[in-house]
Amino acid sequence: MKPTHIEHIGIAVKSLKESIPYYENILGLKCYSIEEVADQKVRTAFFMVGQTKLELLEPMSEDSTIAAFIEKRGEGIHHMAFAVKELPDVLAEVENKGVRLIDKAPRKGAEGLNIAFLHPKSTGGVLTELCEKPEQE
Amino acid sequence: MKPTHIEHIGIAVKSLKESIPYYENILGLKCYSIEEVADQKVRTAFFMVGQTKLELLEPMSEDSTIAAFIEKRGEGIHHMAFAVKELPDVLAEVENKGVRLIDKAPRKGAEGLNIAFLHPKSTGGVLTELCEKPEQE
Repeated sequence: MKPTHIEHIGIAVKSLKESIPYYENILGLKCYSIEEVADQKVRTAFFMVGQTKLELLEPMSEDSTIAAFIEKRGEGIHHMAFAVKELPDVLAEVENKGVRLIDKAPRKGAEGLNIAFLHPKSTGGVLTELCEKPEQE
Repeated sequence: MKPTHIEHIGIAVKSLKESIPYYENILGLKCYSIEEVADQKVRTAFFMVGQTKLELLEPMSEDSTIAAFIEKRGEGIHHMAFAVKELPDVLAEVENKGVRLIDKAPRKGAEGLNIAFLHPKSTGGVLTELCEKPEQE
């Protein structure tokens, strides 16, 4: 694996509406997109900082993993995501090295990226996502 | 404030020696520096990913805030840091907007940067650091 950059940092929040003003008015960032990711039961808000996005994650239901995270630990950083190339090959490579995968194969994430999560048991407690931009069709 | 990029992501680990192999052998990053930050009672290891550093933080004593963090929440992401310009002015600006500061004035952090922390009570649970490269002398 050779990640090119930090694709995004995922931050669990109770409410996008209550959190966005901090990112815009204090940090001086611009929310450029809000998107629902139905299969993760979250609504996301995106901000760009250099090469990296901040992705605020608001749970859309009580059985969302983000709701469980906030319940247990409060609002805060939830995961970090690396941009990689050849994601299926990377997953095979790290699994072969003993890393436990949450996603054995890439699936669709926010912004149309192909994504897969590594299990925090294998990554020193850091929930880690790998992302790849799909090829242009 | 107008951060230019994510300067680093701080990750609390029990042991640099046990954690560095994951970052090097699985993520394919290179540890380019190990440094003690005496006043924070941590030993740090740095890796570059695009514009952003990963900063592993190992507690050097049991009364380090990193030791307390690990005790309470386990290993994982501890804080994120934005690169800014004119840090003293930025601190005055955000305090004026109601943000609680951990550091009222910049102090020296790892790699000779001028740094200051914002209180997570004011930042939606995300311990947030601001960093500025000192001017060349």
